[in-house]
This record gives sequence, C-alpha cells and structure tokens, in this order.
Amino acid sequence: MRDVAVIGVDMIRFGRYEDKSVEDLATAPVIGALRDAGVPWKDVEAAYVAHEYQGLAAGQRILAGVGASGLPITNIENACSAGATAFREAYLMIALGRYDVVLALGCEKMARGLIQQLPDDTWRTLGTDLIPAQFALLARRHMHEYGTTREQFAKVAVKAHKFGALNPYAQYRKEVTVEEVIGSRMVSDPITLLMCCPTGDGAAAALLCSMDKARQYTGRPIKVAASALNSTTYSEGIGSQNFGTCLREGPSLITVSAREAYEQAGLGPEDLDLVELHDAFATAELIHYEELDLCRAGEGGRLIDEGVVDLGGKIPVNPSGGLLAKGHPLGATGVAQIVEIVWQLRGVCGDRQVKGAKVGLAEVAGTAGVNATHILLNS
Amino acid sequence: MRDVAVIGVDMIRFGRYEDKSVEDLATAPVIGALRDAGVPWKDVEAAYVAHEYQGLAAGQRILAGVGASGLPITNIENACSAGATAFREAYLMIALGRYDVVLALGCEKMARGLIQQLPDDTWRTLGTDLIPAQFALLARRHMHEYGTTREQFAKVAVKAHKFGALNPYAQYRKEVTVEEVIGSRMVSDPITLLMCCPTGDGAAAALLCSMDKARQYTGRPIKVAASALNSTTYSEGIGSQNFGTCLREGPSLITVSAREAYEQAGLGPEDLDLVELHDAFATAELIHYEELDLCRAGEGGRLIDEGVVDLGGKIPVNPSGGLLAKGHPLGATGVAQIVEIVWQLRGVCGDRQVKGAKVGLAEVAGTAGVNATHILLNS
Repeated sequence: MRDVAVIGVDMIRFGRYEDKSVEDLATAPVIGALRDAGVPWKDVEAAYVAHEYQGLAAGQRILAGVGASGLPITNIENACSAGATAFREAYLMIALGRYDVVLALGCEKMARGLIQQLPDDTWRTLGTDLIPAQFALLARRHMHEYGTTREQFAKVAVKAHKFGALNPYAQYRKEVTVEEVIGSRMVSDPITLLMCCPTGDGAAAALLCSMDKARQYTGRPIKVAASALNSTTYSEGIGSQNFGTCLREGPSLITVSAREAYEQAGLGPEDLDLVELHDAFATAELIHYEELDLCRAGEGGRLIDEGVVDLGGKIPVNPSGGLLAKGHPLGATGVAQIVEIVWQLRGVCGDRQVKGAKVGLAEVAGTAGVNATHILLNS
Repeated sequence: MRDVAVIGVDMIRFGRYEDKSVEDLATAPVIGALRDAGVPWKDVEAAYVAHEYQGLAAGQRILAGVGASGLPITNIENACSAGATAFREAYLMIALGRYDVVLALGCEKMARGLIQQLPDDTWRTLGTDLIPAQFALLARRHMHEYGTTREQFAKVAVKAHKFGALNPYAQYRKEVTVEEVIGSRMVSDPITLLMCCPTGDGAAAALLCSMDKARQYTGRPIKVAASALNSTTYSEGIGSQNFGTCLREGPSLITVSAREAYEQAGLGPEDLDLVELHDAFATAELIHYEELDLCRAGEGGRLIDEGVVDLGGKIPVNPSGGLLAKGHPLGATGVAQIVEIVWQLRGVCGDRQVKGAKVGLAEVAGTAGVNATHILLNS
C-alpha cells in the first residue's frame, strides 16, 4: 500500500444552526480544506461523505454547490463512526492506488433530541435501555470493580470543558467545576447532564493525497499511519465496546481496533502524543483509556487524577474538548477528530496545543457495534 | 487492478413484508449468497451494506445475525444507486488488492409511500416537482422532439410485466396489456400508474472474490469487467440524467457513466447480451436506451416497437421485470440487478432466460444526480 497524507483540513464551529441547511454547513469546510491544501477542485478525484440523517445523496447535494460535476461521490453511514469510515474509504482508495486526491467530508444537521430520530428497529435491537442508561450501567460496574468515583468521571468532563473553552470550534466554551458537573441534572446515575455530549450541528472536511503527490501541494503533509475498522455483533451492544476491561474475557472491540492500528503503524500506546477519543459520555472516556491500552484495566481513574491525560501530561486526551465540549454532530465527529489531530501535529492549536506533538490517535465507537481507529504522524 | 469475480448471489422476492424487519429480510440472501458460492462466513473479509432508511448501522445489525463479529462493515447510501455503489466498493477493495472476499448487500424495508420519507431538505433541493412529474416532463419533451407515443411508453411497462410474470422474485407477476397500462390511473401525464415502479421491501446479496481465488470456490465465476460511478450537479436534477438525448448539449450523466464502463470493459453496446437498467418509470427506460448508446437519440420508441429489447431481440432489457415489475426497494435494487445478470450469464433463468448470454450491463440512476454502471462477463 502507498503512503497517504492529509494535506488539507477544515471544520466549522459545532453548534446549533437553526437557520442553516446541511448544505450551508458543509460547503465552507470543503472549500476551507481545499484552500488549506492549495488544491483546486478539479484535482479532487472522488469524495466520501458521512452523515446519518441528511436524506438521499446529501453528498451530491452538498458538493454540487462546490462544483462537483462528474465526481464519484459515495455517502457513508456507520453510526458514530461514519466520519471515520468515510476518511478510511478515502485513505484506502489512495493507499491502494485508485486515486491520488480524495475528499472526506463529515456533516450533520441534527434534529433536536436524538431519541426522536431513531427508527423503531434501532430501538428494538437496542433493547429497552436508552443510551445514557446503558453507559451508566457500564460506569457503575467500573465503580464496583475498581473503586472508580463520581469525582473521577466528573474530572473528565471538567477537562473537556477546559479544553472546549480554549477551542474556537467547540460548541461549549465555558469551564465547569467538579461540583457543577456532579450537581448538574442527573440523567442516569452516575451520569449527570454535564457528563453527556450535546446535540448539535457541524461539518468537517479532510483532503487526502498520496504522499508522492502531497509535496506538490504542501510542505507539511500529515501521514496516515494506520486505519482500522471493526465490528462486534450488535447483540453484544454498547457494553462490548466500552467495558471490555471488566465485563468480557477477551479484549473489547475498541481494544481490538486500537491494537490493529498500533500494529499497522508499528507503534505502541507509549508512542502517542495525543488522543482524540469517543467521549460521548465522560464515563466512557475514562474506560476508553484502558481499552486503548493507555493504562491497565482499572487505572483509568488514576490517569485523570494524576493529570496524565491533561495538557502537560504524558498523553493528553481530547484537547479539542472532545464530544463533551466540542460537540457531537454524528457524521461530522470522526472527521473533526482528524482535523484536530492535524492541527495539533502542525502545532497551530494555541492555548490547547500539545507541545511537540508528532503522533496522534483518533478513535470513534458507533452505537451499533462499530469502531474505527486512525493514527496520524507528522511525517 | 486485479480481476474480480462474482461467485455467489441471492435475493428474496421483492414485495411487501409487513411483519418483517430489515434484519429478517436481509439475512436469507446473505446466507444464500454464501451457500451459492460455497464460501464459509469466516472467509468473508469485509462487507458493504446499502440502504436508505434503515437507521444507524443497519449493516452491523443485520450481519450480527450471520455472525459478523470483527468484520469491517460499511453502510452505503447513494440514493437509488446505493446498492450498485456498495457493489462497487466491494469490487474496488478486491481489484485494488485490499481483500480477497467481500460481501455486497442491498436491503430496504420501505415505509409505505415514498413521499413521507423524504426529509425537508431533499424536497427543497428537488424544487417543487414531485418525482413522477419531473419524469413526466422529460417524457413529454421526448414525445415533442421525436414523436414518441404513449403506446410506446406503455409497451415498456407491458414488457416489464411480461418478464415479471416469469420471475419468481418479482413483486408483480401478472401480465398487463397496452390498454390496461394507458387506462390505469393517470399519475402525471403521460405517466400512468402501471408505468411507475411500486413501493416494496427487499434484499439482495452478492459475494465478490478475486479471480485468482474464485476458482477455489466455484467453477463459474462471473467477471466484473467495468465499474463506473459518476455524479452531476444536483441542481441539474433528474433532467440531466434522463434527458441527455434532447435537453442537453453534451452527453447525459448516464451516457458518461455508460461510456466509461464500455471503455473499462473494452466493449461497446453492440457486445451486450442483456441490460438491467433503472426503469423507475417506463418513460425513463425508453430514454435510457438512447443514453446507453443502444440506439441513437430519438430511436427509443423504435426499439420497443420492433422488439429489439424484448426476449429474442438483439438486446433484451430488464428480463428480470425491472423496477416496474420486480420492484424497487431502494438500497436493494442495484445489487438485485447484479443478481439477475449473474443468473442470466449462468443460464439459469428459465422462461425469461436470454439465450447464450455472455455479457450484461447494469445501470442505476439516483435521484440526486448519481449514476452507477457495471458490466459483467461470463469468464
């Protein structure tokens, strides 16, 4: 496989854009990513567009506004991993030699309230548990097994909002305290409102290019060192993704995916300078530390207590503010993680910059048993 | 690129399955395609699953029932071309050497009535025209330009229903007469009810394999000789897809896509033994004859009058019954076209068999300016 680089990225600030369509939201980051890379539209050979709820062929509708005539455009849906999956398809098409320049776009104009959007059959297979309740069960089990505390989960949210306040692209830009997180409305014990990611709209774009050609466009290509996509059986549900460290015998889906990525990259968790991971709930982030092998099972609480995952720590996690503060417009999230990592590896993140960052990992877990992991390198 | 073969196919009869979920519908063809190929599930390396309306990660939910643990599964949406796009991704991943055995699955459990399912923003970009009305305008223009008649459009529907009656997998299995077609309820002049494809549910699966490995499994691999995916700007809408022969200066999207496919295959329209094309409306099929270069602009009416596109004619079109009679469960349609062509090239289609068929073309045009074309060969 050929080396592939990300040569241009852009996103809009996530938030609630009541008066804008998905086309309105997604056009700017596409143009921004092209401009960032110095690539004219005519050089783009294909596009993969991730979204969950934007109707028939949203990618064609959006890219028509950029002049997409003739392009092979494929719309991708893969639950919360959709954006990462679109990025992966773009990556593979270049790595395998089919194209040289491919656009990955993630976008979502969310309805207000996730629940109303899930079709009957999704609820059927999810069983009777609402998503926060299922994550809450996992968190309680972690508390039971390892003595993890509400305060530790709350500190994850505090960290997220601290970073969010530093990120002009974040939906929420206000710091919160541990007391405020714990004292906010209870959603599903121990998960309080400030431990949940918000509903919002957004769009993010990444332009990928074969490394051979990348230097024609840019002096700072970011190499895609690994791309792993895995699934579990849906019947295992969310638990199998997020609680591998204490509910299952073998490694969880997230661990399987991460280890595949580490192997592809020829790197280990100790080589990472930062991680953007799928903190749909603060509780999930803490457990993900363990599933990504950033620490051993049961040590997640220690990582947040000791500031290991904070700025200045050994492995800052979600310096963008993560889903909790930056927001989680489903299809956009996976691409936005890539955008943050590219910016971090370029060293342009201002007050939230991870100093000297050279290697970043992005991970998104989809509700229905899907996980995508990417590793990017400053080449 | 490596040669790729289809080694197993299956589908369910399209129709209305009120009591079944999409998981219920799609599991059987997956197992059927595996059995057809003699491939155990563990040999499948990845899956692409097409659907429009099945909710988050339907592919993961469906394939969990077949034991899909660990597989990279990607859900594809591309309007009516979704199934063909999933097939194309599977094809490319093998052709480019990433995998050897990949599943393409198309499925749809339709709500009753298409209109209720289109989100607001789709209607916005479609403008004020309903889909049948837009096709009707194209048909009227064709009548004006070339003297095409209602009877000629009606004959397309008569042919479709004749084939549907011969196809145990077709939603409608009853022959109709020209008088019945013209006399059926007017939908949008000249399009009557029997000139419209029905709403229905369905699922179809194809198992693809590198040609090198294919003969380990089967003595009758069907080669994928071409795969083209193209888009137009959405603002040009349906007209640009279906009326290239008289409304545009240059070739239409369908023509561009077909000519790309002919070039890839090193074949011309004169080499085709059968075509499965996107007859969402009878009027569209007639115009597609011209756009696929089966004849010159304005000659579509002659092809249906002279039986050129009928069984025994030079180039039988839609021997499956097409969308008009076989049905059109959106995500399933593109894969079902492939299934029919594989069966035809194997010579197992009974009374609707195109004798000695060696080369088949499948074409699907999506509402939002997308078109996918494939050519299959009896290798």
